[in-house]
Amino acid sequence: MNKRMIAYISGLLLLCEAGLLLLPLAVALIFGDKTIPDFLLTIGMLILSGGALILFKPKDKTIYARDGLVIVALGWIILSLFGALPFYFSGEIPKYLDAVFETVSGFTTTGSSILSDVEALSKSLIFWRSFTHWIGGMGVLVFIMAVLPLSGGGGDLHLMRAESPGPSVGKLVPKSNKTARILYLIYLALTLTLIVILKIGGMPLFDSITIAFGTAGTGGFGILNSSVASYNTFCQVTITIFMMLFGINFNFYFLLLFKRFKEAFRSSELWTYLGIMGGAIAIITVNIHSQFESIGKALHHAAFQVSSVMTTTGFSTVDFDKWPELSRMILLMVMCIGACAGSTGGGFKVSRLILLLKNALKELRSISHPRSIKVIKFDGHVVSDETMRGTLAYLTLYVLTFCISILIVSADKTDMVSNITGVIATLNNIGPGFGVCGATGNFSTFSNLSKFVFIADMLLGRLELFPLICLFMPPRNRAKLSLFGKELRRK
Amino acid sequence: MNKRMIAYISGLLLLCEAGLLLLPLAVALIFGDKTIPDFLLTIGMLILSGGALILFKPKDKTIYARDGLVIVALGWIILSLFGALPFYFSGEIPKYLDAVFETVSGFTTTGSSILSDVEALSKSLIFWRSFTHWIGGMGVLVFIMAVLPLSGGGGDLHLMRAESPGPSVGKLVPKSNKTARILYLIYLALTLTLIVILKIGGMPLFDSITIAFGTAGTGGFGILNSSVASYNTFCQVTITIFMMLFGINFNFYFLLLFKRFKEAFRSSELWTYLGIMGGAIAIITVNIHSQFESIGKALHHAAFQVSSVMTTTGFSTVDFDKWPELSRMILLMVMCIGACAGSTGGGFKVSRLILLLKNALKELRSISHPRSIKVIKFDGHVVSDETMRGTLAYLTLYVLTFCISILIVSADKTDMVSNITGVIATLNNIGPGFGVCGATGNFSTFSNLSKFVFIADMLLGRLELFPLICLFMPPRNRAKLSLFGKELRRK
Repeated sequence: MNKRMIAYISGLLLLCEAGLLLLPLAVALIFGDKTIPDFLLTIGMLILSGGALILFKPKDKTIYARDGLVIVALGWIILSLFGALPFYFSGEIPKYLDAVFETVSGFTTTGSSILSDVEALSKSLIFWRSFTHWIGGMGVLVFIMAVLPLSGGGGDLHLMRAESPGPSVGKLVPKSNKTARILYLIYLALTLTLIVILKIGGMPLFDSITIAFGTAGTGGFGILNSSVASYNTFCQVTITIFMMLFGINFNFYFLLLFKRFKEAFRSSELWTYLGIMGGAIAIITVNIHSQFESIGKALHHAAFQVSSVMTTTGFSTVDFDKWPELSRMILLMVMCIGACAGSTGGGFKVSRLILLLKNALKELRSISHPRSIKVIKFDGHVVSDETMRGTLAYLTLYVLTFCISILIVSADKTDMVSNITGVIATLNNIGPGFGVCGATGNFSTFSNLSKFVFIADMLLGRLELFPLICLFMPPRNRAKLSLFGKELRRK
Repeated sequence: MNKRMIAYISGLLLLCEAGLLLLPLAVALIFGDKTIPDFLLTIGMLILSGGALILFKPKDKTIYARDGLVIVALGWIILSLFGALPFYFSGEIPKYLDAVFETVSGFTTTGSSILSDVEALSKSLIFWRSFTHWIGGMGVLVFIMAVLPLSGGGGDLHLMRAESPGPSVGKLVPKSNKTARILYLIYLALTLTLIVILKIGGMPLFDSITIAFGTAGTGGFGILNSSVASYNTFCQVTITIFMMLFGINFNFYFLLLFKRFKEAFRSSELWTYLGIMGGAIAIITVNIHSQFESIGKALHHAAFQVSSVMTTTGFSTVDFDKWPELSRMILLMVMCIGACAGSTGGGFKVSRLILLLKNALKELRSISHPRSIKVIKFDGHVVSDETMRGTLAYLTLYVLTFCISILIVSADKTDMVSNITGVIATLNNIGPGFGVCGATGNFSTFSNLSKFVFIADMLLGRLELFPLICLFMPPRNRAKLSLFGKELRRK
């Protein structure tokens, strides 16, 4: 393990966060918030600690696969601990644990909140809260890599893969820092487009920007207590479409950008994702239409909610906790499936689901066609046994994390539905669950221990389990990650 | 596919059921029940249809792997449809669907009931209801095989494997009908021992026999509305221990019988099973002890309930739906894990859990020890990639069945907890869930569609998905099952 390099990159991360905090500071200056000293203090602390860490530049810049995982896990924890300080210093979130919960929820693009009254926050803190979604959506390390090359060879790729969601982050272009730059440019362009459309649609500028942050990161922090229910239909439809767009693998946009249309539209993940979404919307629309004045209204709300929970954003236009059981169950299921790999969304990921289903289908088929070639293909590529074992391991650890979390949370006096959906909502980075943590509720009533579990789940979900687990495993040198089979070791 | 052979064995099954129905008929004669003509009519119908089917003895006695699956699936459905007739003819269960529900619940050793007042049934029907547990526990086809050899070569083994629970049914002795006979003798001996102990403990003979049937098959039909709450502590402790014993892989008893102690106690599944059970009992005892007058009483009830739900029996001494959330969650989890492979219990099976955990651990370890040999061993044997893929396919189809079932059941107006735990309780062949289908409730309030789904789930759970799915797949000749890897094709 290259400890020097880990310290160095952690230092860069802290300085980067100091830079990012200048934006909410500017907002504080514009609105004349009382939070100016709180932001200044935090920025000062970040510069001091970050500066100290980068003082000694490491000679050996190699980043091993395991280092990549450790840096990402450690980095995200540090960022959250510092990012929570403005909330805490200002006194607007009096308990530090709650402030950390809110910040982790932001960075991991979960959108779960311990606040019962969001509107009581200062404008600058609301801005920072939503901004964390945007930062966390694409990843901070990917951002740093886009700006400066950290390490030669495959080191950067190890970092990017550890931070990006989903089982397969391809190298779009030979150099990984160029890949990072292209990803961030697509991300930025889509976000700016959304801000402009929302502004044209009649949303105030401040709302447009913060809601766009929440949509782009598939985070879901609203800036009003009613989430996005009070905005007009045009804005809600726009958000529906953009949530869906940000749940698509960014490779798709990359391929579009380089006019490789055939390749872009060949993705089975894309069509499965849209298919599941369409099916869910159709069933829910029929199921809830009696609650609304017209089938169009029902479709509108069904589409918004499905798009919101499947991309794990978590915005809401209505209290879907009051919908019929069937609709609630469908929402719960698309919550667990989640978005595409390589998007800003969370969940189990559509591509993993496809792998599992293909494997099951193959086993069933081998009963009828015993001599068929037993190979699973995904978009034309053969899936190795190792990849399948990796997916199986991921599924196992995912279910295990889920079970352990629920057991600990069950020590609270909260009801079973709230406990289970609370864990689902945080582990999949969705935001709201059902019951007390539903669309109109929040997580404030849970015990400190449960909040700690939810914080861990949000990080585990966003970083896809392995980096955090790896952080707490006994360190060994020169370890290479063989998690998703040959692809990774081929760097 | 050998259709002649399938028809022939189905005929044997019907005649066998006619023979088995002589026992409840005898009970009806002893107690002077009004159900005598109902049993006679059913037996007559069975003899006629069974006799017609075995008229033409097939020349080719080969049973292919796929045939084995089809025979088992078809056989269990036919047995249940006929087995439900006495309940229906007698008018004591007025709706045929409900009678089928109760019979499937019996044969699959689930123990879910649509009856709100069990005690209102005739003695002979209560006896038949409990007897179906005992028959279903070890399997009807295994019983027929124990009596007469059906097919040469590996045919019998295909049948036995398709009917027995768990991923690995070993051939204990070279000839599979001898294996079947030994298994049934162990099963019979354990059941008789239990009947004798319960009788000595002060239970009336009728109760001893029927409760022993429910325990041996890990079924859980009680004969009193209070399940087994009204029996004395000695009897409850006896049942606790025997439920646990019937949840152990029967290979264990076989090895004990042949004095291969070292081999018997080397089983990692046995120790994991006992470990999980012990852990669950310990936590629940601490969690519920304030509800009972002494820690001993709490331990007693915790042990009973854990043993009952983990072995998927489903007896209860108290209403565990009123226990704290943590205890309820632990019960729900051990419900899903289930008993050992090769036992009469249901659920996902401890051995599959071990396989999954070993694979996950191996993946995690490969981060620290990249050059370690990537092989998973189970009790000294190397687990093939095919076996892992088979386990993954099973897990996927299991979760898929679970999700589809819940979606359909959610169309009812019942609450989420009842819907989810109802599916868990039937798919894992446990019996009671929580909410309306809890320990003191029953399944009568669900719609016909939901009851149909529960019936399908009970069969899918007991036969471990593949036979039933196979039954509804397009047939092909000479297909061999490669479900659990090489073991199966090696016959």
